[in-house]
Amino acid sequence: MRAATISDGVVTVAEHPDPVPGHGEVLVRVRAAGLNGADLLQRKGAYPAPPGSPKDIPGLELAGEVAELGPNAERFAVGDRVMAIVGGGGQAELALVHERQLMPVPTNLDWAQAGGTPEVFTTAYDALFTQCDLSGGERLLVHGGAGGVGTAAVQLGAATGAHVTATVRREEARDAVRELGAHAVIDPEGFVDHGPFDVVLELVGAPNVPDDLKALDTGGRIVVIGVGAGAKAEVNLLALMGKRATLRASTLRARPLEEKALTARAMERHVLPLLERGDLRVPVAQTFPLEAVHDAYEAFAAGGKVGKIVLVM
Amino acid sequence: MRAATISDGVVTVAEHPDPVPGHGEVLVRVRAAGLNGADLLQRKGAYPAPPGSPKDIPGLELAGEVAELGPNAERFAVGDRVMAIVGGGGQAELALVHERQLMPVPTNLDWAQAGGTPEVFTTAYDALFTQCDLSGGERLLVHGGAGGVGTAAVQLGAATGAHVTATVRREEARDAVRELGAHAVIDPEGFVDHGPFDVVLELVGAPNVPDDLKALDTGGRIVVIGVGAGAKAEVNLLALMGKRATLRASTLRARPLEEKALTARAMERHVLPLLERGDLRVPVAQTFPLEAVHDAYEAFAAGGKVGKIVLVM
Repeated sequence: MRAATISDGVVTVAEHPDPVPGHGEVLVRVRAAGLNGADLLQRKGAYPAPPGSPKDIPGLELAGEVAELGPNAERFAVGDRVMAIVGGGGQAELALVHERQLMPVPTNLDWAQAGGTPEVFTTAYDALFTQCDLSGGERLLVHGGAGGVGTAAVQLGAATGAHVTATVRREEARDAVRELGAHAVIDPEGFVDHGPFDVVLELVGAPNVPDDLKALDTGGRIVVIGVGAGAKAEVNLLALMGKRATLRASTLRARPLEEKALTARAMERHVLPLLERGDLRVPVAQTFPLEAVHDAYEAFAAGGKVGKIVLVM
Repeated sequence: MRAATISDGVVTVAEHPDPVPGHGEVLVRVRAAGLNGADLLQRKGAYPAPPGSPKDIPGLELAGEVAELGPNAERFAVGDRVMAIVGGGGQAELALVHERQLMPVPTNLDWAQAGGTPEVFTTAYDALFTQCDLSGGERLLVHGGAGGVGTAAVQLGAATGAHVTATVRREEARDAVRELGAHAVIDPEGFVDHGPFDVVLELVGAPNVPDDLKALDTGGRIVVIGVGAGAKAEVNLLALMGKRATLRASTLRARPLEEKALTARAMERHVLPLLERGDLRVPVAQTFPLEAVHDAYEAFAAGGKVGKIVLVM
């Protein structure tokens, strides 16, 4: 099979042996695989794949058809449309996924949309609901509302009855975020004046945290899932006590199979129905064939788009 | 009635009008009232009483007999032995408490023990279980294990199946903390080497937090309920993400009636049965009559004892 392959900080296409599904595993003929921020880190060697994932094939999500079942795999049949987050190796013609990590693809998603769904929606759902218990009527602040996870978080918050405020730096992207359901789209500068919030989704990192805490209401929760702008945060514990607040942080990639499988079950129960009936959308900004993977990475790194960049095989 | 009274940074005894119970309130003839760290802060003007509590009468907990019921108060009868946390005013001959905040006194507690029970056990229970979901088999680190909340936390952790490590600076206090059920009693210096822990009860403050995070296992929780050593903590968000960890903080005093009442119900359900059957003890270091309230505060401020200092009326 051919696969995107990282070599000396460059992503090219190379031949690899076809993977063979083991117990409980499914061989997926990948039809689409989204790009994510972590791919850029991995390209420059800063985010190695976890044990059990291909070391040199990037890709944290994929959608495709079941090509072959390993022994004991029985949740899906050959030909079924499936999608999943994976620890790596998604940007390839074939990929192995444990059947407990796979989800069915909602019927109204095309391949590009499906390939761009698992990572951002699982991340956003896990952060907002599993980690922070966001619920209807609460006030949510999404930092980086125009990014991949941001657009998923804005939609999930709005679709479940939260009041959603999104920070978006680029003025030209704000309308698109409003159309996804954000009730207020603001400049990141001075976001603290738009509070108070019950839940803050922090995708930027340490520099925001002191103001996140200021903008929080009593009982509020901050969840950090990105630290691109810095990791060392100053936290005023007295303010945290006074607000009985929670600061938590999470990543998906490092989790063991059983925990990743739980996120897939949560997606099937809470998110796929909303995708299925069109209450959530998967904005795709641009697609590239596997051969153009280098261009896809460059387009992703350049930024400036609302929606996913997806490789389509 | 007579009551401990703060005036210009000194605690004396003064006459006050007898309080009159309003709707749902109970007038308690106070028999014992424990001292707490917050009393010292309030004595020096740093921790004003919340609205609705006497401004100049300190005391965050009390035990006594029901003296009179206000209109609609029906949970207890005149003469019942009751105890409670209060927003202030506990160190007096009479105190008003909303009936939803009152708990019955376990039959095997004497007045001094009962007067020293509500604040530390409610604080410890709330921090460990309500905030951090501590459960059997988990590894708990209690900072300041010889203090009031520390001794309660050590016992609650051990009684519910956690493995309890307690830091105790004074060597001469370590045996007493071991007798309360701590599985390991260690010097605060180098506590990080005794991890990993699932839950850390942080009573000291900011200087400990970076090492608390280092000592935490995946999925671990830090709960801050004291910041005597400093409030500005540096938090490594990348480490917090990698461990999928939670940093939270809380105080009891600022909570509204309904939330305080919930802590009383949690105490009745989960803690009083353990006190009743002797699985938890209330160590009382020293008692003072109300007249000697100044000496009681001085003894409390001097530290160096394991167990509560309680005013007995």
